[in-house]
Amino acid sequence: MRASASAAPLALDGFRERVQECNLRDAQLEELRSFVPFAVQAEPAGLLRPEFAAQLCSSFPAVFERHGAKVTLVASLKTPQARTEAVGACMRRLRDDGRIAGWRDELFPVATAFDAEPLLLLERAAAPFFGIRAYGVHVNCFTRGADGHLDLWIARRSRTKQTFPLMLDHMVAGGLGHGLSPSATVVKECGEEADVPEQLAAKARPVGFVSYMTLVPEGVKRDVLYVYDLELPPDFVPSAADGEVEEFMHWPVEQVAETVRTTREFKPNCNIVLVDFFVRHGIITPESRGFIALVAALRSGDVA
Amino acid sequence: MRASASAAPLALDGFRERVQECNLRDAQLEELRSFVPFAVQAEPAGLLRPEFAAQLCSSFPAVFERHGAKVTLVASLKTPQARTEAVGACMRRLRDDGRIAGWRDELFPVATAFDAEPLLLLERAAAPFFGIRAYGVHVNCFTRGADGHLDLWIARRSRTKQTFPLMLDHMVAGGLGHGLSPSATVVKECGEEADVPEQLAAKARPVGFVSYMTLVPEGVKRDVLYVYDLELPPDFVPSAADGEVEEFMHWPVEQVAETVRTTREFKPNCNIVLVDFFVRHGIITPESRGFIALVAALRSGDVA
Repeated sequence: MRASASAAPLALDGFRERVQECNLRDAQLEELRSFVPFAVQAEPAGLLRPEFAAQLCSSFPAVFERHGAKVTLVASLKTPQARTEAVGACMRRLRDDGRIAGWRDELFPVATAFDAEPLLLLERAAAPFFGIRAYGVHVNCFTRGADGHLDLWIARRSRTKQTFPLMLDHMVAGGLGHGLSPSATVVKECGEEADVPEQLAAKARPVGFVSYMTLVPEGVKRDVLYVYDLELPPDFVPSAADGEVEEFMHWPVEQVAETVRTTREFKPNCNIVLVDFFVRHGIITPESRGFIALVAALRSGDVA
Repeated sequence: MRASASAAPLALDGFRERVQECNLRDAQLEELRSFVPFAVQAEPAGLLRPEFAAQLCSSFPAVFERHGAKVTLVASLKTPQARTEAVGACMRRLRDDGRIAGWRDELFPVATAFDAEPLLLLERAAAPFFGIRAYGVHVNCFTRGADGHLDLWIARRSRTKQTFPLMLDHMVAGGLGHGLSPSATVVKECGEEADVPEQLAAKARPVGFVSYMTLVPEGVKRDVLYVYDLELPPDFVPSAADGEVEEFMHWPVEQVAETVRTTREFKPNCNIVLVDFFVRHGIITPESRGFIALVAALRSGDVA
C-alpha cells in the first residue's frame, strides 16, 4: 500500500493538537473538579455546573434535592417514566425562561452506561447542562484503488447549519437517539445524509470508538463516537439528500491527513475519528515520535 | 462481509475475562502501591518490589541509593554508558547468586518513553525486576476470501519452548530490542519465525497498540505491543524457520474468536491483540453489551 510504504514518518504535533482541542485543558480540569455529581437512585448519571445545581434545587425542590455532595431526584420518583415527566416539566420551564436554548423535542437516554437501562429520558437540548454521556456514529467513507491506495469522501457542511457552518465533516455522521442501535443509525444517516442505498450502507464495518470530554458554557460534554469504515465502490457518488451538505469531495487520504494536521477546517470531533482512521490504516506509524501518547489520547473521555 | 453481517451480537464475557487475565486484579492494585519507584536522574524509569529495592541499596551502595521514597542511581553515574556498565555488573552478581534466572545477553533500553533516549541499557532477564516498560510487535496474519471472509494464520508454540509450550500464538510476534524499529522488527521476525519473504512482510500495516500491566514474581510487567495486520496471498503457506513452532494452522476468524472467548489455549497476551483485531474487523460490534468497557480495557497498561 502506497501510504504505509511512504518514506519519513509523519510529524504528529498537529494531530496531537487537534485531539487536544477536543479535550479538557489543564486549567479546565481544575474547573471540572468544582462540578456537582448528578445521581439517580444513587447511580452516577452526570455532572452539573455548581450554579446549575443550585438553580435546580432552589427552583424545583419537588424534583431535585441535595444529597451530600450530590444532586439527586427526590426518592418518590421511582420509575423512569415518572422521572422523565417530572424533569421534562422543569426543563420546559427553563426553556420558557430562556435558560435552555435550541429545544429539539428529541429525547436522550440518561444511563450509567450505553447498554444499561435508561434511568430517565432527557430533552437533547438539556443534555449538556446535565453532563450526561452522549453517543454518536461517524462513518469513514472511502474507496480503495487497485494499488491499495485510499481516497476518502468528505463533506462540507451547509452554510445554513446552526453549528460549524461550511466546515469539513465526515460524509456520514449523527447522534444516537433513544431506541436505535449504532448500526441502524449508520444505515439511517447514510440514507438521509448522502443517499447511500441501505444494502451498501449495511456494509459499514464497526471498528471501535473514540471519546473526549470538553467544557462548554452549559456544562461538560462527555461524548463517545462509534467509528465505522465503509468502503464504497469506485463509481459511487454521494448526493446531499437532506440539504445539510454544501458539497462532497473525494480526496486522497494524504490530503485529508495534511488538512487535519495543519488546519482547523474539520469540525473538531471529526479530527479524532480521522486520526483513529490514519492509525488503523498505517498512515500514522509507530516510528513517529509521540505515537503511543497520540493513540492513547483518542479515548480521553471517561467511559467507565 | 460475512462476519460483520452475522446475526446476534456476540456475548463478550469470555473476551473480557481473557483481557482481565493479563491485567492487575483489584487485590494486586493494593500490592502495586507498595512498589518503590525507580528513577534515573529524577526521570521515572520503573517500579521495584520493596524487597528488591532494599537489596539493591544494601548490596550495591556504590550504584543504588534511596532518594526520598525512590531508589535512584548514584549521581556520579552521569552517562548512559556508565550506568549500563555499573548496573550490568550488579546484575551479573545477582545472576551468579541465583537471584536472576534465564540470562539472555540481550539489552533492553530503560527510558521514560518509547521514543525517548535510553537512560541506560539493561539485561533483558533483569527487566521485570525493574518494572521497566517493555515493547513488542504482534502480527495478525490473515487471508481474505473473494466474499471478504477472513481466515487467520495461527501458530502452536514448540513443545520445547521455555515459556508457554504448546500454547496457541500469533504466526509472528517478538520483543523489541535496542536499536531496531517496530517495522524492522516485524520484517525480521516474519523471516525468522515463519519464512515470510521480506517484500511480503513489508506489507504488514501498523494499526495501533495494546497495553497491559501485570504482577509477576520478579516485579511488575508493563508491556506495550505494537499491532500489525498482514494480509497474505491465499496460496502463501508459512513454514517454521527457527524451530520455535510446532505447527501453523489456518482458521476461520470465527473459530479463532470462539477459541479466545471460551478457552485459555492462546498465550495470554495474544488474546488482547486478537480481541483488538475482532473489534477493528467488525467481529465484535457495538451492539454487544459491554463493548465500550472491553475496547477501553485493551489499553489498560499505563503508557504516560
